[in-house]
Parts: sequence; C-alpha cells; structure tokens
Amino acid sequence: MNRNSEESKENLCGRSRVLAAQTSLSELSPGSDLHRAITYHQAVPGSEARAKLCIYAGNALGISDEATIGLAAAVETLHNASLIQDDLQDNDATRRGRAAVWKKFGRDVAINVTDLLLSNAFALAASAGPLHAQKLVTTMNRAVARTLQGQTNDLSYEQQTDLDEAIAIAKEKSGALFSLSLELPLIMADHQQSLSQAREIGTLFGIGYQIFDDLLDRDSDRLSGNSANIALMIEETAVTKYKVDTAEELAYYFLSEAASGAAELPSGCGDLLIEKCSALLHALEREAA
Amino acid sequence: MNRNSEESKENLCGRSRVLAAQTSLSELSPGSDLHRAITYHQAVPGSEARAKLCIYAGNALGISDEATIGLAAAVETLHNASLIQDDLQDNDATRRGRAAVWKKFGRDVAINVTDLLLSNAFALAASAGPLHAQKLVTTMNRAVARTLQGQTNDLSYEQQTDLDEAIAIAKEKSGALFSLSLELPLIMADHQQSLSQAREIGTLFGIGYQIFDDLLDRDSDRLSGNSANIALMIEETAVTKYKVDTAEELAYYFLSEAASGAAELPSGCGDLLIEKCSALLHALEREAA
Repeated sequence: MNRNSEESKENLCGRSRVLAAQTSLSELSPGSDLHRAITYHQAVPGSEARAKLCIYAGNALGISDEATIGLAAAVETLHNASLIQDDLQDNDATRRGRAAVWKKFGRDVAINVTDLLLSNAFALAASAGPLHAQKLVTTMNRAVARTLQGQTNDLSYEQQTDLDEAIAIAKEKSGALFSLSLELPLIMADHQQSLSQAREIGTLFGIGYQIFDDLLDRDSDRLSGNSANIALMIEETAVTKYKVDTAEELAYYFLSEAASGAAELPSGCGDLLIEKCSALLHALEREAA
Repeated sequence: MNRNSEESKENLCGRSRVLAAQTSLSELSPGSDLHRAITYHQAVPGSEARAKLCIYAGNALGISDEATIGLAAAVETLHNASLIQDDLQDNDATRRGRAAVWKKFGRDVAINVTDLLLSNAFALAASAGPLHAQKLVTTMNRAVARTLQGQTNDLSYEQQTDLDEAIAIAKEKSGALFSLSLELPLIMADHQQSLSQAREIGTLFGIGYQIFDDLLDRDSDRLSGNSANIALMIEETAVTKYKVDTAEELAYYFLSEAASGAAELPSGCGDLLIEKCSALLHALEREAA
C-alpha cells in the first residue's frame, strides 16, 4: 500500500537530491576547490538506487514526505562519499562518463569532499527525524564502520582468490548501504523489531548484486587478469559453504534469499527491493537460456 | 561553580578516552588493518585539550557526567580524525613521537581511519544527548564543514604570503573544533542563545593559538623557508586590518578577545579557556621581557 504515485516518488527523489546538494554547499565559500568539486560531482547523478529504495520504504511505512526526503538524501550522500573514495583508492580515473573527482581536483580535495559528505549524511539523517535522531545516527555509524571494514579488507587483499573471503568483503562493502535504505525508514516508523532482518536483507542483496555485476564483467576481467571477480573465482574453486557450482547459482541463491526476506518486512516496505531482485534474477535466466 | 574536583575531571577525561576507543573498535574485526591502525593511534593520547574544555564546560553547566563524557569523546574523536588526515595531506611522517598512521599503515588505511572516526564522533554526540541529538549533530556538521573548508584552502595556497588570508584559514581550520568544545555542552544545557558567542570565542582562540604556535616556530621556519608562518608573514607586511606591528601583538589581540568573550558565557563554562588564554599571554610577556 503506497501513498504516493510513481510520479510523485520521482518528485521526492528530485527533492532529496536538491536537499543533499543544498546541505553540502551550505557552509562552503563559492569558488573554493571544495565547493567546485562537490558541485562537479553532483552535476551528474547516478542511478540513485539507494535513495529510491528509501523513498519507497518511507512511503510504504507512512512516514511524512519531508522526513522521507531527508533519509533518502542521507543514504545517497553516504553512497556518493563512498564512490568518490573508492575511485581515489582504486585509482579509477572516470566516474559517470567524466573524470573522477580525485582526477580533476586532486587527491586531497577528493579526501575532503568525502569527509564533508560523510558528515552531511549524519546531519541529514538527524534532521529528518529529530525524535529518532540518536538511533538513526548510531545505525548509520554502524553501516559506515562495516563499509569501511569491507573497503579496508578489500584493499589489503590485492590478489583475491579466496571465494569465501571475497563474499565476506562484498557483504560489508556493498551490503551496508542497501541495508541502511531500509533500516532508516523502519527506525522512523518505530519498527525496531525489523531492523536486524532489514540489515540481513540489504547484505544478501549487496552480495547478490555484486556477483551479478561480476558475471557481467567476467569475460573482460578474465582478459585483463583481474582475479578479484567472484564469478572467476568460482570457476577455480567449487568448494564453498554455499554448495553451488556456478556463479549464476550463487547470485540466484543470494538474490532469492534477499527477496524472500524482504517479503516479510512490514507494510510491504521492501517491495521495491523485491522488484529489483526479480529483475536481476530474470536477467540471469535470460543469460542462461 | 564546578561540581567536580580536578581529580574527578581527570577521571572523566580518562573515561571519555575509553568510550571513544570502545566506540571506534566496536564494529571492527580484531587483527584487521583498520582495527590495528586505530589501536595504534589511540595508544598515545595527545594533550586532550578539546576534551578537557568540553568536560570543564559540561561540569560548569550542570550536565550529567555520562553526557559530558560522551560530548568530550565526540570532540576529541573529531580532533584525532583531523590530525590523522592533516599528517597524510601535509606528508608529516611523525605524530606524538612515532610514525604517523599513514606512514605506518599506508595512505588508504589512514583515509579509512579518518572516515571511521568522523562517523564515530556523530554517534558519540547523538548518544550523549538523545533529546538534543539533532542540534548536536547539525552543529558538529557545521564545524566539520568549516574545518574542511579551512584545510582545503590551506592546501591550495602552497605559498601563503597574504596575512589576512592566512588568518581566515586559521579561523576555519583551527577554530571550529575549539568552538565545538563549548557549543556542545551549551546545547545540552539549553543555552542556545550563547552558541554564536561560543563559536566566535573558539575561533578567536584558534587563531590566537595558531599565531602563538607560529611564534614558537618562527626561527626554525625562517631557516627552513616555510613561508606559511603567520609570525613570519607579519614581518613582511605590517598592513592588516588588525592594525598591529608584530605577531606578538596580534596573538595578544586574539587571545585577549577570546578571554573577554569567554568571561561572558553562562555559569563560568568558559573559565578553563580563559585560563588557557592567560597562560599563553603570560608566555608571550615572558618572551618579550
């Protein structure tokens, strides 16, 4: 049961983008490197998948539009911080078809932009729900810590060949922010008892999505010798605790687990995540056929 | 009027240090690079000046010890994040007599440690005062933004020669966290009307302290050719909007302004800052005599 139409959900997403941009620039001097770099990054938005999951959940749970926008802006701001930092740390020179922030403005500016966005995310979450601010902020802190733990482990395994290790990293690195897109609205709607399930669902989806992505990159990664691809790893070692033989089966396992978990969340707040799982599962089946 | 004795204030400072350490490690895997790097940095605490200002103010304002500890841990955690990042960005290889975090664990780990501590600071502040969490968090976000603006400007002026510019940078870069040490306890004690004054006092103190520090380094910076020293700059250009001829006079101006402002804060919560100003002013006078 969802209050807002598709159109108005698009509109909320646009408003959350504006709020995130305003928040990030509010204390900066126009013309400064920091101001320019943030404006540059925000000029081309990404898919905003996390903001949309959050808006869908907020709507389903009956949270006010104002609060929903704030939570979505917080989650998407965190995601943007992680992208800018990933590009820097992985030496990826392009993002969204243009030079990455570190490539255009230098490494120090990229580091400072990341810090600012990270800080902004907490202010956005706390302002979205003053009465729930402590829980929103501490939950976000835990998601950030998990993401950083995953990112640090990822960087320290340059030659990843252990499948279970790679999955554990994907769990922390990709899953935590998807979890947060569901956790924050659940906190606002006083569904504390669903939080651990939402965390688990986001984690499962994060791994499933990562394996799906690695499947798309399997051939190019094979050619370029990038061994940190889960779909390549599984060709080398079929023995994992998940008892599957192919990467497709493994992606299928995680995405269907995520979808069944999401179906149990209150008020259908996980339905958009279920849709996303279905779309990925269908794509896998088409590929296999 | 201060509830706690000197001894018990030392004790609160120790407890805030323990709380900060526990918070930073709570989501990390023991043995991981992130865990090791944070433990390494925390093994040698600094002067904890910001935590002590915060504890003094919290006590004076009648805030519970529990909340005071949390706020002090938040401010000191932010300060540690800024130190680790400064060392990285300024290529300073040592901190507190040992290798800096980036030197020992690498640049990527240092960046991730900074992010984690920054994130922790918000969780600590929000948990210290759940009912004031929104205001605590948004005030902290503003201080972080100002610090980053100062740090980014600082890095972009490699050859600083403009005195007013250097002072503007010191204002943002050094002042914001001193301000926060007073602002957070004032928020908890519902003294919203004193916040802008606290912000101004912290800023004045930050600049005064920076110039004092630059005076100590003047001779060595002259020899090494480091022109980004305010005390050296003022020898070159006596024309500033502050109408002073020497760096000593300029430090004196800012420190006495900070002290007079602090004297007007409620319940004597700025008295420790006044003491710090006096100590620095006496040191300047001894030097001049």
